[in-house]
Amino acid sequence: MRTKIDVAGLFEKIRKENPVVHHLTNWVTISDCAQIVKTLGASPVMAHAREEAADMVKIASSLVLNIGTLTPELVEAMKLAAQSANAKGIPVVLDVCGAGATPLRDQKCLELLREARIDILKGNTSEIARIAGENVRTRGVDAAAVGGDLAAIAQTLARSRKCTVVVTGREDIVTDGGVTYLIKNGHEMMTRLVGTGCMAASVIGTFAAVEKDPVAAAVAGLVCFEVAAELAAERSKGPATFKEKLFDDLYNLDAKTIERLQKIRNV
Amino acid sequence: MRTKIDVAGLFEKIRKENPVVHHLTNWVTISDCAQIVKTLGASPVMAHAREEAADMVKIASSLVLNIGTLTPELVEAMKLAAQSANAKGIPVVLDVCGAGATPLRDQKCLELLREARIDILKGNTSEIARIAGENVRTRGVDAAAVGGDLAAIAQTLARSRKCTVVVTGREDIVTDGGVTYLIKNGHEMMTRLVGTGCMAASVIGTFAAVEKDPVAAAVAGLVCFEVAAELAAERSKGPATFKEKLFDDLYNLDAKTIERLQKIRNV
Amino acid sequence: MRTKIDVAGLFEKIRKENPVVHHLTNWVTISDCAQIVKTLGASPVMAHAREEAADMVKIASSLVLNIGTLTPELVEAMKLAAQSANAKGIPVVLDVCGAGATPLRDQKCLELLREARIDILKGNTSEIARIAGENVRTRGVDAAAVGGDLAAIAQTLARSRKCTVVVTGREDIVTDGGVTYLIKNGHEMMTRLVGTGCMAASVIGTFAAVEKDPVAAAVAGLVCFEVAAELAAERSKGPATFKEKLFDDLYNLDAKTIERLQKIRNV
Repeated sequence: MRTKIDVAGLFEKIRKENPVVHHLTNWVTISDCAQIVKTLGASPVMAHAREEAADMVKIASSLVLNIGTLTPELVEAMKLAAQSANAKGIPVVLDVCGAGATPLRDQKCLELLREARIDILKGNTSEIARIAGENVRTRGVDAAAVGGDLAAIAQTLARSRKCTVVVTGREDIVTDGGVTYLIKNGHEMMTRLVGTGCMAASVIGTFAAVEKDPVAAAVAGLVCFEVAAELAAERSKGPATFKEKLFDDLYNLDAKTIERLQKIRNV
Repeated sequence: MRTKIDVAGLFEKIRKENPVVHHLTNWVTISDCAQIVKTLGASPVMAHAREEAADMVKIASSLVLNIGTLTPELVEAMKLAAQSANAKGIPVVLDVCGAGATPLRDQKCLELLREARIDILKGNTSEIARIAGENVRTRGVDAAAVGGDLAAIAQTLARSRKCTVVVTGREDIVTDGGVTYLIKNGHEMMTRLVGTGCMAASVIGTFAAVEKDPVAAAVAGLVCFEVAAELAAERSKGPATFKEKLFDDLYNLDAKTIERLQKIRNV
Repeated sequence: MRTKIDVAGLFEKIRKENPVVHHLTNWVTISDCAQIVKTLGASPVMAHAREEAADMVKIASSLVLNIGTLTPELVEAMKLAAQSANAKGIPVVLDVCGAGATPLRDQKCLELLREARIDILKGNTSEIARIAGENVRTRGVDAAAVGGDLAAIAQTLARSRKCTVVVTGREDIVTDGGVTYLIKNGHEMMTRLVGTGCMAASVIGTFAAVEKDPVAAAVAGLVCFEVAAELAAERSKGPATFKEKLFDDLYNLDAKTIERLQKIRNV
């Protein structure tokens, strides 16, 4: 049996090791993704030129890809970076942001999955269902309702793609096809703020930089981010004060608070 | 005679219908534009690849174009998106951000106006004057003084381009060449915050997603945005607290407050 | 002997003259850089198309280049803009963001230095050491420790490149190879916020728009920015409240406060 995930311990490990987390991401939330990584005590790098995509991986401990504002050229640079990360042995997180919205997105996600090893595949319910081949239609980057047993869909996807699958939603799912965790942290206010999904991927990438087990990294990352969101939402007047408190509360988070508030179930 | 514009009703309609508002916009304010749309209760999408520009329109209820950080390639994608929106029959808003600053901007605005149907053409005083063919010189993206009767210039432009023209400034002008409205809401603090002009275009695009009459959509959008700005400015200590309160106050706006504070004149 | 730098006077001059500051910069901090320039009372322009890079310089009083998310195409546009700025006689600031992280960055910095006149070359300790030819390895965009006498390295670099060199850090160095100033303002909290380095370059560019002496412009800009950071950090709970207060406190800064808190040494 798997040992308990030490969420608080991993949170503290990031501050001690200060890993570099490299990103090829979208132009909407790029600043927020960089700041959330820095807020955790790690060093973000965002660089998208084909000509340095592989080189930048050399100084990084993990790589986060996000197709939110993809172009074919950007995806080519992502492939180079991911292949370089594979060769170096550092984890690759892919946020399939907006999958299902257009054929280009679906096609490029499949290309990335085919041409590189993706360690953690992350999306919201409709995005993951789409990648799994379910018949859904994404509403832009916001989640749409999906029928069926999402945990089973995620487990099958994880097994067929040989990766850890993360589905964010009211209850998050993290599975490698073998073990599956459900996380009940978070707050409805997260859906009112642009970028919470992208930031979650960057947080997971930051935890993956200090923890080899991708399931543990994803669970721990989501819990810390969403516990901070709960604390922030309580005292927010709207999306802007929520955003400010989300960053500050994550910055001030400690092991005790994490352990008191974490809601993880191994199913 | 035209019936009274139901600003508060349209504001509430957005929250009920939750439309998708697609953008091809600039890299400076892209995050703020997405957040202002979400704050209104709609779903923003920002995507600029030529390869999906037209496909993304299929899930959208309106399209916002903003040339703030244009390149010739981006404008080609804008044309594809706009033509797709025209074919689908959803409204297209063009923010002629920085028109007059360089020959490229003027030329690309004219190309967009020629190669697609623009439903709402929006700019500040110097930008609109430039598109109308007046001899002005834009100071970057900030407005410069323009001589002449701006309302008359806007009306002539609206008639010749067969669109609704929106001129933002101390007193905003909205006209389709037939009816003309002046809006006296807003606050001087808006000029101290980067992106208020771009956000105004996104707000107008969001209202246009639920209201077929472009004049009503533009008037209602500007009024709601600027009433929130008035509320925010009262309690601000500078541009950053103003920004935070602008988003929170728009999020918390209600029909009663809108009706109490709106300052619309039909001239 | 050089006369005393009138920091407060230059701060007030920006508000009076309201210069346009043109940028070709990175996608992570582009919004923050625009806002910091506007907060000082100047007008930011960010535009990166090759086709208008030189034209936009015509309306600007200074030019800021930042290679944070460079591509070869973007650097070509930077060269055109810088050459146009050189011809017009307005100052060019280059932030060598991430120099040392990849060969592409080092090569492109050297190309920019060779193909245009850079008036103010700015970086953190490891970036400047790298440009000076020292053997360092940058940790992404965060500073790494550098051995040796950094002031001497900066002075030699300034003389060989015939420019003013700015090294940001716990104690900032500003030198043209002849005179050298050390600035002890600032706060450790600046290292927890993404974009403070990029914003510092934009602030320096804004001061350079109203002050011909690049050393005076750089010293004055850093002092004002860092005094605001000190004021902001005192009342911050984390990186997000720090950011909000940094903008508001810079907006509300006055001559008296600057003169009371500035810590400049001519060495």
